[in-house]
Amino acid sequence: MFETSPHATRLRETMTDFLEQHVYPAEHLFEEQVRASTGECWQPPVLEDLKKTARDLGLWNLFLPHSEKDHEPMSNLDYAPLAELSGRSIHLAPESMNCSAPDTGNMELLSLFGTPEQKERWLRPLMSGKIRSAYAMTEPQVASSDAGNIQLSIVRDGDEWVLNGRKWWISGAQRPQCEIFIVMGITADSPDAPRHRRHSMVLVPKDTPGITIERDLSVLGFHTFESHAEITFNDVRVPVSNMLGEVGAGFAMSQARLGPGRIHHCMRMIGAAERALELMIDRVSKRATFGTTLVDQGVVREWIADSRIEIDQARLYTLYTAHLMDTVGNKEAASQISGIKVAVPNMASRVIERAMQAHGAGGLGPDFPLARMYVETKIVRMADGPDEVHRRGVARTELARFTEATTPAPHGLAAHLAHQR
Amino acid sequence: MFETSPHATRLRETMTDFLEQHVYPAEHLFEEQVRASTGECWQPPVLEDLKKTARDLGLWNLFLPHSEKDHEPMSNLDYAPLAELSGRSIHLAPESMNCSAPDTGNMELLSLFGTPEQKERWLRPLMSGKIRSAYAMTEPQVASSDAGNIQLSIVRDGDEWVLNGRKWWISGAQRPQCEIFIVMGITADSPDAPRHRRHSMVLVPKDTPGITIERDLSVLGFHTFESHAEITFNDVRVPVSNMLGEVGAGFAMSQARLGPGRIHHCMRMIGAAERALELMIDRVSKRATFGTTLVDQGVVREWIADSRIEIDQARLYTLYTAHLMDTVGNKEAASQISGIKVAVPNMASRVIERAMQAHGAGGLGPDFPLARMYVETKIVRMADGPDEVHRRGVARTELARFTEATTPAPHGLAAHLAHQR
Amino acid sequence: MFETSPHATRLRETMTDFLEQHVYPAEHLFEEQVRASTGECWQPPVLEDLKKTARDLGLWNLFLPHSEKDHEPMSNLDYAPLAELSGRSIHLAPESMNCSAPDTGNMELLSLFGTPEQKERWLRPLMSGKIRSAYAMTEPQVASSDAGNIQLSIVRDGDEWVLNGRKWWISGAQRPQCEIFIVMGITADSPDAPRHRRHSMVLVPKDTPGITIERDLSVLGFHTFESHAEITFNDVRVPVSNMLGEVGAGFAMSQARLGPGRIHHCMRMIGAAERALELMIDRVSKRATFGTTLVDQGVVREWIADSRIEIDQARLYTLYTAHLMDTVGNKEAASQISGIKVAVPNMASRVIERAMQAHGAGGLGPDFPLARMYVETKIVRMADGPDEVHRRGVARTELARFTEATTPAPHGLAAHLAHQR
Amino acid sequence: MFETSPHATRLRETMTDFLEQHVYPAEHLFEEQVRASTGECWQPPVLEDLKKTARDLGLWNLFLPHSEKDHEPMSNLDYAPLAELSGRSIHLAPESMNCSAPDTGNMELLSLFGTPEQKERWLRPLMSGKIRSAYAMTEPQVASSDAGNIQLSIVRDGDEWVLNGRKWWISGAQRPQCEIFIVMGITADSPDAPRHRRHSMVLVPKDTPGITIERDLSVLGFHTFESHAEITFNDVRVPVSNMLGEVGAGFAMSQARLGPGRIHHCMRMIGAAERALELMIDRVSKRATFGTTLVDQGVVREWIADSRIEIDQARLYTLYTAHLMDTVGNKEAASQISGIKVAVPNMASRVIERAMQAHGAGGLGPDFPLARMYVETKIVRMADGPDEVHRRGVARTELARFTEATTPAPHGLAAHLAHQR
Repeated sequence: MFETSPHATRLRETMTDFLEQHVYPAEHLFEEQVRASTGECWQPPVLEDLKKTARDLGLWNLFLPHSEKDHEPMSNLDYAPLAELSGRSIHLAPESMNCSAPDTGNMELLSLFGTPEQKERWLRPLMSGKIRSAYAMTEPQVASSDAGNIQLSIVRDGDEWVLNGRKWWISGAQRPQCEIFIVMGITADSPDAPRHRRHSMVLVPKDTPGITIERDLSVLGFHTFESHAEITFNDVRVPVSNMLGEVGAGFAMSQARLGPGRIHHCMRMIGAAERALELMIDRVSKRATFGTTLVDQGVVREWIADSRIEIDQARLYTLYTAHLMDTVGNKEAASQISGIKVAVPNMASRVIERAMQAHGAGGLGPDFPLARMYVETKIVRMADGPDEVHRRGVARTELARFTEATTPAPHGLAAHLAHQR
Repeated sequence: MFETSPHATRLRETMTDFLEQHVYPAEHLFEEQVRASTGECWQPPVLEDLKKTARDLGLWNLFLPHSEKDHEPMSNLDYAPLAELSGRSIHLAPESMNCSAPDTGNMELLSLFGTPEQKERWLRPLMSGKIRSAYAMTEPQVASSDAGNIQLSIVRDGDEWVLNGRKWWISGAQRPQCEIFIVMGITADSPDAPRHRRHSMVLVPKDTPGITIERDLSVLGFHTFESHAEITFNDVRVPVSNMLGEVGAGFAMSQARLGPGRIHHCMRMIGAAERALELMIDRVSKRATFGTTLVDQGVVREWIADSRIEIDQARLYTLYTAHLMDTVGNKEAASQISGIKVAVPNMASRVIERAMQAHGAGGLGPDFPLARMYVETKIVRMADGPDEVHRRGVARTELARFTEATTPAPHGLAAHLAHQR
Repeated sequence: MFETSPHATRLRETMTDFLEQHVYPAEHLFEEQVRASTGECWQPPVLEDLKKTARDLGLWNLFLPHSEKDHEPMSNLDYAPLAELSGRSIHLAPESMNCSAPDTGNMELLSLFGTPEQKERWLRPLMSGKIRSAYAMTEPQVASSDAGNIQLSIVRDGDEWVLNGRKWWISGAQRPQCEIFIVMGITADSPDAPRHRRHSMVLVPKDTPGITIERDLSVLGFHTFESHAEITFNDVRVPVSNMLGEVGAGFAMSQARLGPGRIHHCMRMIGAAERALELMIDRVSKRATFGTTLVDQGVVREWIADSRIEIDQARLYTLYTAHLMDTVGNKEAASQISGIKVAVPNMASRVIERAMQAHGAGGLGPDFPLARMYVETKIVRMADGPDEVHRRGVARTELARFTEATTPAPHGLAAHLAHQR
Repeated sequence: MFETSPHATRLRETMTDFLEQHVYPAEHLFEEQVRASTGECWQPPVLEDLKKTARDLGLWNLFLPHSEKDHEPMSNLDYAPLAELSGRSIHLAPESMNCSAPDTGNMELLSLFGTPEQKERWLRPLMSGKIRSAYAMTEPQVASSDAGNIQLSIVRDGDEWVLNGRKWWISGAQRPQCEIFIVMGITADSPDAPRHRRHSMVLVPKDTPGITIERDLSVLGFHTFESHAEITFNDVRVPVSNMLGEVGAGFAMSQARLGPGRIHHCMRMIGAAERALELMIDRVSKRATFGTTLVDQGVVREWIADSRIEIDQARLYTLYTAHLMDTVGNKEAASQISGIKVAVPNMASRVIERAMQAHGAGGLGPDFPLARMYVETKIVRMADGPDEVHRRGVARTELARFTEATTPAPHGLAAHLAHQR
């Protein structure tokens, strides 16, 4: 059950060692370097050291299923437990292994849809970890969870595309290593254009004239080291060769990008929750109130039990979704991908909040990775659309499944399908 | 993933047909026969018809993993989807196929621990469906979720065991076909006796002098057709040969009985929840309020999505537990068995309550199977111990796992184990 | 704060004595009488005894605010704590004092809208407790939470109204004392008729030809002693003088009926929850598992604390709503009336479920009033419309309040109003 | 009901004007000034401007019930709606009016227990807003929610007290205006000393040798402008005259401090929740997804309705608690004070989270006050002890109430008390 390839199994051991010997011990140093930089430490030095080590250990670009250079081919099911492990140190480990958002999704887009020239110029340095990228989709003026609302205009003028508009929550854009943006906008603004063929994606070098980074957006008041930019595009011009994929394919490509991205987010969240549970157990084993060690208090034991029960269900649901993606494809697994996007970050929030509660005021502070994890769950819950949008998707699939059943007793058939799938 | 044997897969098809052609159509007749009997219809005739059909179709005693006579050997993972299917008509289908509690657990006990004579006399007619049995453990005077509290005394007097005490919530005891009780009591009442060697199980024919069925206990005011008896044992004498298993082994045997019983309960609950979701979708597709069909209301879509997400997680958790029982054994899977016992009936309660809410007042009434399902979740949540006891077990395992980790970074190891198991 | 009149304060003492000396001790006898009647004990004798005692004590018809004969005038705020007390024995106490649904609402309708003849013929015997009544609104074929869906036709034919249609969940209709139905139906079925002027209410004696009681609807499988009937009306004819209020005023009258009815339901639910909490504390003080008295387990203490916190909030919310009804009127308090209808029965469900859980299997059975209370919360949650309909009402008021604020900073004004009201 | 004095009513109008004309418009400027200061803006200039305006308007030190100089005497019930209003701009308004924690609690301590010299030296400049103070109780090494765990040692040496120990989460300590710490520690460390007479409070000027501010603790990664310090005390010496109140009275004084502090926190949280609801309504009225304005989506309407229902219950519970404090005293109202401390911040968390969800990614960012409000609820939930400690208190009171009832039917009495109190 949930068998992974021997290669993936070996990588889990390597990664576990890497985490224990290099990453966890570096967490405090990372916090200090971030702190010392008064809020704009876009690349703490410790991270570069970890990247070097990870690369030497073969823990590099594992997210890319089809890359033969860095590792053997890996299925979603192979990758899932690895992503979970990396989520245990959610701010350090994924980037150490060149497996962090938004670069993973961007590399996938380039890998799938890029021309040879685009790959040479952008994908290669991204895969080597020399540069980083940003994905510019969300806009401040519209509810961007409905991609059809996106308004940044992309107009052809001779051999160039001209971009005008405003984006925000563009993660990583301010980091000095970031050199390229993938920008989503409208290329067919007529009311006649089919709703799902109106948008396109363009590759825009960060230093193109007309781009202004207006500010860094704090998350719960917190200027995260990865940064979240608000950016204006004012007559920004790029050559027509910078179109990524076909004109009008932006919506479809954004959907293609989101499937793996969502499952990666979810697997990392499971790792974060697992670590939070361990931190909780460690803490409550050492503290006493009113004459009783916390671990011997019934309420704390309920927190532990409920956390274990919820984590295991979320992990199985995610592995199952990975298996579906591997076997029937991302499109057929769309409902499950939406389902884990709702279930897993919410689960992680609950588990991490319990762990924070068990740490008292310390749980809110910088001495434990819990506060960072918690803020991360807030970001993940919002990234790629809020829960409400994903629930809509799950319900729509469910209703379609019900309607399409043609036997006189649809209940039976639905259940049968439920088992067969 | 979750591959079942070809035999089990075929049986799912057979069972789906049986449900659609025989069981669902009989549900209304069943309700009428129960209603017509003014509350004491212990064996509605329709049930005997269904039993005959099921037996002819080979849908008989499937719960018994090792029975070669009725079917090929079946693992827990093979049986799980079949039990789920049977839960779709939770009051009719399991008994139709001789797969209903408490007889399943009692047959397992007899099969595992019975002497050849005991098997001949009791197991054979139970397996043929001619008689039924009861399991007498819970007592009114003590919190019976702690089996160590059980007080009914079993004292040796010459060649006989003499029983004195009171039991309640003894399911099925009043049904006319019920001929045998498995009674748990104390055989070693001295304070010196080890706590887990004090209890034994004795086979007691229902017509033994000294047994009085005091009353039928209603569930939420409802006298269920299966019945729940309060029984007094007053100098009830049985031969020493009626001891089931070893003297003092009662506690261990009760634990052995509960593992499969719990997973069967959980699988049936998943089937009930799946059916409730289908009934909900069917209903909301046909009703309108304030100018909108219910299915087009956002709140209803959230109910549908959340139900699908919760059912799928619960199913995967239960299948995973079945797989563990098959591969590492019931004892090693104890924490997961406790985990599903908490998670699944609660999930089913939520899904069924949403479906009832979608049915308005009708959801509380007899025209849909929802009210029966709901009462059943209440019984299952309490049977084999309340949630609080099972959460204790999950937490204890979790703490032990944490304590036993001997590497310097226990978090890492724990996660590794989490993936390997 | 929440001052009640001296008269109401005295009545609370009288009612407390009545409950302790007469009602609680009669609860077991009531259960036995219901049980002995094999499911159709519409009027257990003990109830008639209690009615006599209550009447002698002046605990009679207290719900009627303006009745001078039985008691001094009483505000909603005066009556609320009395209704709460009666909810402590929710199946016995309200009817003992002639203060039980649906008669209370029906008496209010007759009192407000009845002609002198109608009052003489129906209100007088209802107020004396000699007969009982039913309120026939809900229909099986439509979502009746939207009153505009009601379809029973009421057509004028000479000096008579002719009724045709089907009703269900008509509480109390089968009881032998029930002599009169208030039936809601359509009198103006043209599409031109204003939506809120299409329905009317007619007084229909139960023995009128053409009325058939089809069956008793069980609630969660439970045939409650008060009964819930499905009834067909087939060319049922009553004189035109049996119209209650104006033709076309049915919708408005049903709204008028529901305000006080909802707050009475809520106050009784609070009493039920308060009693459930006491039963829980009593039980957990006497039971031990795994070496600890339940009351010393942290999880149980959380149940107690959360129950107290939730009950107190619900009581204050209801008293505040009563105060609003007394001071600004039922219409202005509509949002709060909807709010308590959502909040209070849900609170009571949670508290009663915790108490049931603390009672183990016993909590589901007939030895404690918990199971009856729980079923009652299910009925109340559905009666007068499900939560979803009431939440719509609260949200609509909230949005209107926001839109109507005309100052530049609506937030401020809204908060100001919040304090002033 | 909940009548406030004419003076308090007038102040509400003044405060509403102050908020609308001065505070809300300053919120963006405040954010800019905080942002411009790269994380250590301990006193944004805009705050000093607001203080001057508030003082001119008579909105100054209103929290102090007995101060005749700044305003007429005010009950807790008078002050509650004012504190709620100030919570609508939770980071700006309270401090603008010299009504912010921890100074309010410290001023109360000095007012109640200070010597004339102590009042002259510290209370007077605090009340004038010239200096600020900190309250040093929580320690990193022990679970400080059990005050008996506090370990900082206070040892007499001649005419001086000598302090040694470590404190953390000392709010406001780093701000330049902060000049005085109230430090809690052990003065009687012998095992014989009664548990509740072992601690004392000492006034320690911030510039006393031996005090080291080790670091600023971030909250969810966020260095709040008010600051939360970790501080070591190394042979810190103060004159014996700096003892606040009696030696050994520290525990009792800390309890006295917490009552009003908790209710002030809760009232402010209600204001924050009310504002969050308004921001949510404003936002959803302006945004559309998938062709529908958010406000017309059923799920959003549920958020609005549930928020209104929960806020109103929490406000009533808090006003009721204020009334109890005014009439029966803080000690008798201890259970309710604990109850609101559990219920209100949790309610505010839920409402604010819904509002954030309705704002999409924007809800996490700096453009709306929601993120600050949310972080504040996290701090308040932890300040003065976590929920679990307060639930213990509520349960203990409940059990005592039950045990002490001496009539044969305690349920009745308890309910009676419930109404009378």
